[in-house]
Amino acid sequence: MYDGLKGFREFYPDEMSARRGVTDAIEDRVRRYGFREIGTPALERTQLYTDKSGEEIVEELYAFEDKGGREVALTPELTPTVARMVVGKGSALQKPIKWFSTRPFWRYEQVQQGRFREFYQTNIDIFGSDHPEADAEILAVAADTMTDLGLSAEDFEFRVSHRDILGGLLESMDSDVETGDAIRAVDKKEKIDTEAYYGLLVDAGLTRSEAESFDSVLGTDDLDDLVDFAGTDRVEAAVENLRAVLEATASFDVREHCKISLETARGLDYYTGVVFECFDTAGEVSRSVFGGGRYDDLIEGYGGQPTPAVGVGIGHETLSLLCQHAGVWPEEGSETDYYVLTVGDTRETALEIAQELRGLGHTVETDLSGRGFGDQLSYADGIGAETVVIVGEQDLADDAVTLKDMASGDQVQVPLSDFPPEEGRPTYEDFG
Amino acid sequence: MYDGLKGFREFYPDEMSARRGVTDAIEDRVRRYGFREIGTPALERTQLYTDKSGEEIVEELYAFEDKGGREVALTPELTPTVARMVVGKGSALQKPIKWFSTRPFWRYEQVQQGRFREFYQTNIDIFGSDHPEADAEILAVAADTMTDLGLSAEDFEFRVSHRDILGGLLESMDSDVETGDAIRAVDKKEKIDTEAYYGLLVDAGLTRSEAESFDSVLGTDDLDDLVDFAGTDRVEAAVENLRAVLEATASFDVREHCKISLETARGLDYYTGVVFECFDTAGEVSRSVFGGGRYDDLIEGYGGQPTPAVGVGIGHETLSLLCQHAGVWPEEGSETDYYVLTVGDTRETALEIAQELRGLGHTVETDLSGRGFGDQLSYADGIGAETVVIVGEQDLADDAVTLKDMASGDQVQVPLSDFPPEEGRPTYEDFG
Repeated sequence: MYDGLKGFREFYPDEMSARRGVTDAIEDRVRRYGFREIGTPALERTQLYTDKSGEEIVEELYAFEDKGGREVALTPELTPTVARMVVGKGSALQKPIKWFSTRPFWRYEQVQQGRFREFYQTNIDIFGSDHPEADAEILAVAADTMTDLGLSAEDFEFRVSHRDILGGLLESMDSDVETGDAIRAVDKKEKIDTEAYYGLLVDAGLTRSEAESFDSVLGTDDLDDLVDFAGTDRVEAAVENLRAVLEATASFDVREHCKISLETARGLDYYTGVVFECFDTAGEVSRSVFGGGRYDDLIEGYGGQPTPAVGVGIGHETLSLLCQHAGVWPEEGSETDYYVLTVGDTRETALEIAQELRGLGHTVETDLSGRGFGDQLSYADGIGAETVVIVGEQDLADDAVTLKDMASGDQVQVPLSDFPPEEGRPTYEDFG
Repeated sequence: MYDGLKGFREFYPDEMSARRGVTDAIEDRVRRYGFREIGTPALERTQLYTDKSGEEIVEELYAFEDKGGREVALTPELTPTVARMVVGKGSALQKPIKWFSTRPFWRYEQVQQGRFREFYQTNIDIFGSDHPEADAEILAVAADTMTDLGLSAEDFEFRVSHRDILGGLLESMDSDVETGDAIRAVDKKEKIDTEAYYGLLVDAGLTRSEAESFDSVLGTDDLDDLVDFAGTDRVEAAVENLRAVLEATASFDVREHCKISLETARGLDYYTGVVFECFDTAGEVSRSVFGGGRYDDLIEGYGGQPTPAVGVGIGHETLSLLCQHAGVWPEEGSETDYYVLTVGDTRETALEIAQELRGLGHTVETDLSGRGFGDQLSYADGIGAETVVIVGEQDLADDAVTLKDMASGDQVQVPLSDFPPEEGRPTYEDFG
């Protein structure tokens, strides 16, 4: 008996069908926005991450030396690979570039609820537009996806902020502040107590009183307060950009899902503009469901032409938790249109009928084990068959088959000349 | 500038859309047969392979020690993981178990045409039936998939054999033969010269004259010859089983794709019954496109109850080559139903129309970069838009939009009350 690895999961068909339903819903919506699917490798050179990714990601890398002496790592996130692809084709790619993909990533993390060492993400990115409509489209595609899954404003909210507001407020302080450290402190605020939070801000260079007034202004609902507090062009421009993005979300009809929340900082260093995180309003999922934002400097950092960018990575594990808590997780189980049941020496005809039905696009199973009537019926029940097509010797003598409705148990004999028909998916109801 | 790893590929949208088309076609057909999707991890304990997989696979493992001191490996094939899953749930699983999945695997191989270090497979397996209908269903689902892709008997053939025919013939020799070595010799026959082939057979224990008569009988078309040659129950039973499987493929209407080829041995040691390989009849793909067969002892070998099994692993890279040579590779490129073009101060309405069209299920893009008329039209052309919806200030003053057919360049003004309609996907044709 062999065990799987901690933090790595296998999905049996019932659970997998629900997961597939969620992935299909996400991808269907994403495609409608004109995002195009890309395919990316599972391994990259370790240097791709040690050069550019945050410290936390590098510490959690599955990294090793391959048989050719190359330092390689299992991809812990998509962004560096996508950046490499954008840089690789450069100006040959029509802008804006709108790409998505769904696939697993790997990090050696502490395993806990909704967090695994192998986890799935749908990444959605726009490269080549610095206009607020691009930020809004990312918010809109994510919000519409949630709505498609059956979630509403009662279940989730996008907490939206702007990196330059935090950065600009910190810059406007009299003290010399380590902006990155202070932003990371804000990002951790909800997870630590107030004194520890102020401690981190003071470590980042603020005085205690600056830390308190900074914290206080972050809580405001009125963006004008921020502009007044900072009194700098940088904060004014950031506020104007955030307002324009939110205004565009209204045209996309997703404004109701977006809430200004200046304490939303996103842990990653590469964000440059609007940032947002999805939270469940019921608080059942104890942390951000997923997040995204603008990262205008990243492509240049990987050696490309300056290319504005904005994107979101939808994490399937936390999203699944949210769907389950909200009662919209797809039903787990199998569905089957027809089970073709063979009784007596009718196997050949049964296989032929099954093939005809498959040719019409239906999901069909038939006996592969030489079983009797009862065992076949029990199997048909187990796979969720809607209709059982009984092919008995007497049926065939009558040039007919018997259709049995599995929900009611009702059955009716139907001439072989009428079944299967050339189109449609007839059940007992159509003949009974 | 960063490079990807040798043997690992990224797929840009045009190529990816063709690959996705092939994967969707395969999975659609597989689902119609009632195979259920499973999800499996990318990493396993290395021991899972060193204990059971063939030497070749173990030599090519991407294996390393994780941060917790575990010896782990990137999965080089699906079978051991699936065996672990079947053993794990044991009798709780209704038989026959019919599973499939599409995903990448990894082997440190020599990179060549159609062979990469990261490669994709759709694995399709049936556990729990030793009846010939199960073998035939695997052949049928694979053949129907090929037909769905546009391939015909002129493009491919399944070379079908039975492990016990080879094994039984070897066993019936006077010499004491290392069966595994002799079967591997047969598997290599097409790749090496005749003398080397006989050399391997002699190394496996045959005399030179036995090797020659063995080779000669393998070339027969008449299965009765084999039974006579060997004169053993084992070969007779194997021939009977092979005949029953081929007979069942006739009921599945795929007999024309199956050709008896006793030299088809499959390299892997775990096959026990019918084995087959798909070859392209034109010989453009220089080796087996993919293969499969029966492996009745494997589940027990992993600690489970005796469970007969049969399956196929469709390799996407060689299949792609075959499709390309046969001229049925899907067209690479993007398709877009609508591009909503904004002229003047109409952005808000343009976004709203785009959202309405997306709500109806269409693929829609609109301007995210504040571009002018010509640049937007050029972008719409680049993404393969069928219809451009022009939202001009004059249009809106007329309570209308203009539909432009991108193929002909024709355009017509349509009242906003008629567009978008509540259903359908109207184009210029519907109004022009």
